[in-house]
Amino acid sequence: MKRDGFAIGIDFGTESGRVVVVRVRDGQEAGSCIVQYPDGVIDERLPGGPRLEADWALQNPADYLHVLEMGVPKALKTAGVKPDRVIGLGTDFTASSPLPVLRDGTPLCLLRRYHTKPHAWVKLWKHHSAQPEATRITEIGSERGEDFVEIYGGRYSSEWFFSKLLQVLNEAPEIYDACDRFIEAADWIVWQLTGEEKRNTCTASYKAMWVKGRGFPSRDFFGALHPRFENVIADKVGQTFYPLGWRAGGLSAKWAKKTRLREGTPVSIGNVDAHVSVPAVTVIRPGSMVMIMGTSTCHMLLGEDRRMVEGMCGTVEDGIVPKLWGYEAGQSAVGDIFAWFFEHGVPAALEREARRLKLQIPAVLERGASRLAPGESGLLALDWWNGNRSVLVDADLTGLLVGLRLSTRPEEIYRALVEATAFGTRQIIETFEAAELPVTDLVACGGLPERSPFLMQIYADVTGREIRVASQPLTCPALGSAMHGAVAAGGVAGGYDSIFEAAQEMAHLRKSVYRPNRDNHAVYTELFREYQALHDYFGRGGNNVMKRLKEIKMQQNRS
Amino acid sequence: MKRDGFAIGIDFGTESGRVVVVRVRDGQEAGSCIVQYPDGVIDERLPGGPRLEADWALQNPADYLHVLEMGVPKALKTAGVKPDRVIGLGTDFTASSPLPVLRDGTPLCLLRRYHTKPHAWVKLWKHHSAQPEATRITEIGSERGEDFVEIYGGRYSSEWFFSKLLQVLNEAPEIYDACDRFIEAADWIVWQLTGEEKRNTCTASYKAMWVKGRGFPSRDFFGALHPRFENVIADKVGQTFYPLGWRAGGLSAKWAKKTRLREGTPVSIGNVDAHVSVPAVTVIRPGSMVMIMGTSTCHMLLGEDRRMVEGMCGTVEDGIVPKLWGYEAGQSAVGDIFAWFFEHGVPAALEREARRLKLQIPAVLERGASRLAPGESGLLALDWWNGNRSVLVDADLTGLLVGLRLSTRPEEIYRALVEATAFGTRQIIETFEAAELPVTDLVACGGLPERSPFLMQIYADVTGREIRVASQPLTCPALGSAMHGAVAAGGVAGGYDSIFEAAQEMAHLRKSVYRPNRDNHAVYTELFREYQALHDYFGRGGNNVMKRLKEIKMQQNRS
Repeated sequence: MKRDGFAIGIDFGTESGRVVVVRVRDGQEAGSCIVQYPDGVIDERLPGGPRLEADWALQNPADYLHVLEMGVPKALKTAGVKPDRVIGLGTDFTASSPLPVLRDGTPLCLLRRYHTKPHAWVKLWKHHSAQPEATRITEIGSERGEDFVEIYGGRYSSEWFFSKLLQVLNEAPEIYDACDRFIEAADWIVWQLTGEEKRNTCTASYKAMWVKGRGFPSRDFFGALHPRFENVIADKVGQTFYPLGWRAGGLSAKWAKKTRLREGTPVSIGNVDAHVSVPAVTVIRPGSMVMIMGTSTCHMLLGEDRRMVEGMCGTVEDGIVPKLWGYEAGQSAVGDIFAWFFEHGVPAALEREARRLKLQIPAVLERGASRLAPGESGLLALDWWNGNRSVLVDADLTGLLVGLRLSTRPEEIYRALVEATAFGTRQIIETFEAAELPVTDLVACGGLPERSPFLMQIYADVTGREIRVASQPLTCPALGSAMHGAVAAGGVAGGYDSIFEAAQEMAHLRKSVYRPNRDNHAVYTELFREYQALHDYFGRGGNNVMKRLKEIKMQQNRS
Repeated sequence: MKRDGFAIGIDFGTESGRVVVVRVRDGQEAGSCIVQYPDGVIDERLPGGPRLEADWALQNPADYLHVLEMGVPKALKTAGVKPDRVIGLGTDFTASSPLPVLRDGTPLCLLRRYHTKPHAWVKLWKHHSAQPEATRITEIGSERGEDFVEIYGGRYSSEWFFSKLLQVLNEAPEIYDACDRFIEAADWIVWQLTGEEKRNTCTASYKAMWVKGRGFPSRDFFGALHPRFENVIADKVGQTFYPLGWRAGGLSAKWAKKTRLREGTPVSIGNVDAHVSVPAVTVIRPGSMVMIMGTSTCHMLLGEDRRMVEGMCGTVEDGIVPKLWGYEAGQSAVGDIFAWFFEHGVPAALEREARRLKLQIPAVLERGASRLAPGESGLLALDWWNGNRSVLVDADLTGLLVGLRLSTRPEEIYRALVEATAFGTRQIIETFEAAELPVTDLVACGGLPERSPFLMQIYADVTGREIRVASQPLTCPALGSAMHGAVAAGGVAGGYDSIFEAAQEMAHLRKSVYRPNRDNHAVYTELFREYQALHDYFGRGGNNVMKRLKEIKMQQNRS
């Protein structure tokens, strides 16, 4: 069949959902629409309800449906594409962002009875108050020698599925009892669209301890966490998961009407934003590391075999594309550090200069920073403003800046911060390579590659690797979802039979390449050795001052 | 004789000179006058002459005479004091600030022939380009086991007398040959006033290797520095020095006319600003450490005996007051760090808040910082923005900030910087005490104690010691000079027979006392242990990253 149709991809982000309509033949974007979530990130008080405690972050699942209803028709209209030309639809989500629902999929928080109960709502990926549960899971898992501890690089995160579910049981047993299913929003949205609860292997593997061919840890393990947790899999989760790119089902009559799409339009199994971006930037083989660079950075790498890599977020067979091992690493703050500096570290004089030059503050800083040679500032930073997500996997680590002198200027600090995040990436690359997972080159997408060639060149110089950028750096997850929609449709229906085929036709990179400057790379290699010495000293127990400062801070906050 | 007269003190600072007229009976200030130096600090180009290289800082000796001519009559007038009621006059100076002069005292730079030669001018204390000479002096001195190396805590500074004179010989031998005397401005001004070249023991001992009872190092030592330096003492310096408080002579007819004072008015031997401040804040016994707190801080302590204290600026018998050992330590940047932060680290939003509240930026930062408990920021800093002057004595060390996170705010950084300077002071106190020189309490003067009660309370809490502040914190050197003028006059002339007597009557402290808060002190002691661990790791060779960053910076600056 000719590939003359369109596929829809929907990327459910932290603040909004993005719908794109792309041409199946070549991935060309025909139209798109961004829909803000009406309730956004709920981290202060429930809509019309009680205040939340610190470290809570919830969402309203009705907002996701709102994206479908508003966004799909509008994107189709912008694209000038008729519904019968849409061959498939795919979705991706932040993760782990689970919610408690009834047997029919109704979210508890949408029932009047549970509307004012915080635990009835979606726990967004950055809901961080399940740390006691996460700690207990890691401890019990380590004691018992459970596989997942090693797979997750030694530590189960407070952001992940079972930390959040165990928190529900600990803090709101009535919600735990009332829910029939506890489910990733990624899977819940597919259930809404198709009427079928078909969960994906990606979130199950990266966030919920599920291992291909072996399933979940034993009932004994879950029982050791809490007596009433013993049957959690049978009671709330289930044992069946579906691979990425599979067809979950056809669009239901109800949602066909709401989205104006054809009933029965193939819908793919749910996916995760970072993972779905990998084929969307053409990467379907080992060697090229994908960097999704925004407020934080995710690093995705494919491998032929299973390797144990220090402090990764996860190592999953078929976790990104079929037949290959998917490795995920990350830096928990990148753009966030720069945003912090723009807001809290940039003096009024520089703001005035920005006005005079009619530039934004970041542009003025970059102007100054780009005139400096590597090492010329005399500054070096550790990029741990939001802890360390990969290699050290330690949320209690904090940022460090050394080399300050009376002559230090804001643009020098800014450059040092950019360099520090590049050193963090190089540390991850070297950790992959130490585990015999070669990283030959880099492919970038996200907001930073779109915005800052200056930053991309520093990354090339620091890592000594060529960097290519996605042709549309901001829409990679949505494109990836559309590609999975096309795969769900399959070749016979005008789509593709595999994500590999889809990637070859639909994914594109820009022609320009950031190539490392040899001299700069040599200086950065000297500086990186200094970074590593500080990284190990402060991160591996040489001096736990960062943790002790945090303890003192917590004590003083309490008193 | 009744003490119903007045004494004049003149403090020659970095940017201006201050003249005070004080009542001899009780030190009460009757009038004063500040005179800016017309040429200020000459660090870019000579007046009407060539550009200077980096790290140069010169002054024009004519500016000092301008202070006398303009300031003394005006201060007398403000005070409503007739010249015949002035019983004595004392002066103090920055140090080491030497200049080359002819046999009659004429500065070479005031001769047309040498006017465009930078080496003919006063080398101000912060002239830093004689570092190669300083390094050579330390090396040769260490090899030969010269006493001065130990007395100066292991290193001879680029700021000091012989570094500067050797630089003249190396770089401008014609100036070296042309000058008959190379003399501290502190002594040159006394020579101008009295017609007598009588040099003081204080600068000789703290800056020029002179040791009471033993004199200078041998001709061999100076010859080892440079063949033509062998006779430097005989040719340019001389062997005779006079103790502080001695009468250098009577005011000459010429300067009596210019200043409107009585001819023959007793003039005391020259002194140094930091040293002369000690009796001016009532301290004439061991135990109370004096802090002169401004852009940098000097710490002055008296001791009964000679002790070897790690990394002090100097240990001198009679160096501050007679019969006691004077110890000097320092922090090379204190107010300068805050000024750096006010200028380069304070965001526009805070500046707007300052305007709204009609406050200065420092006041807004203090408002925020004063609401924090010790340790609540989670931040810790090393206060080495301008190197470390005491204990480590290492100009290549740089500032460090740890504990940074996305939630860090400017007022938290400001508090951490203030705390870091207080930790630096505690490190000096503990170093004194480790050498069996007890520090029982603190006495402060200078700009910071006048301006910031917030900062003073933090110093009390960090050090665990009571702090008293001079009654007039800004004018202590000038008052100290006036006290020495009264001592030069002597009891028979309506003055005092010793600086001890003068201090008892003329020096005063404010009644209020900063007392350490016990809880805060306990937290700060925890934090200080962390400061010390970082201090030793980065300052004693555990990790020389600061020096390596500087080397890379220098390389990159050159290329």
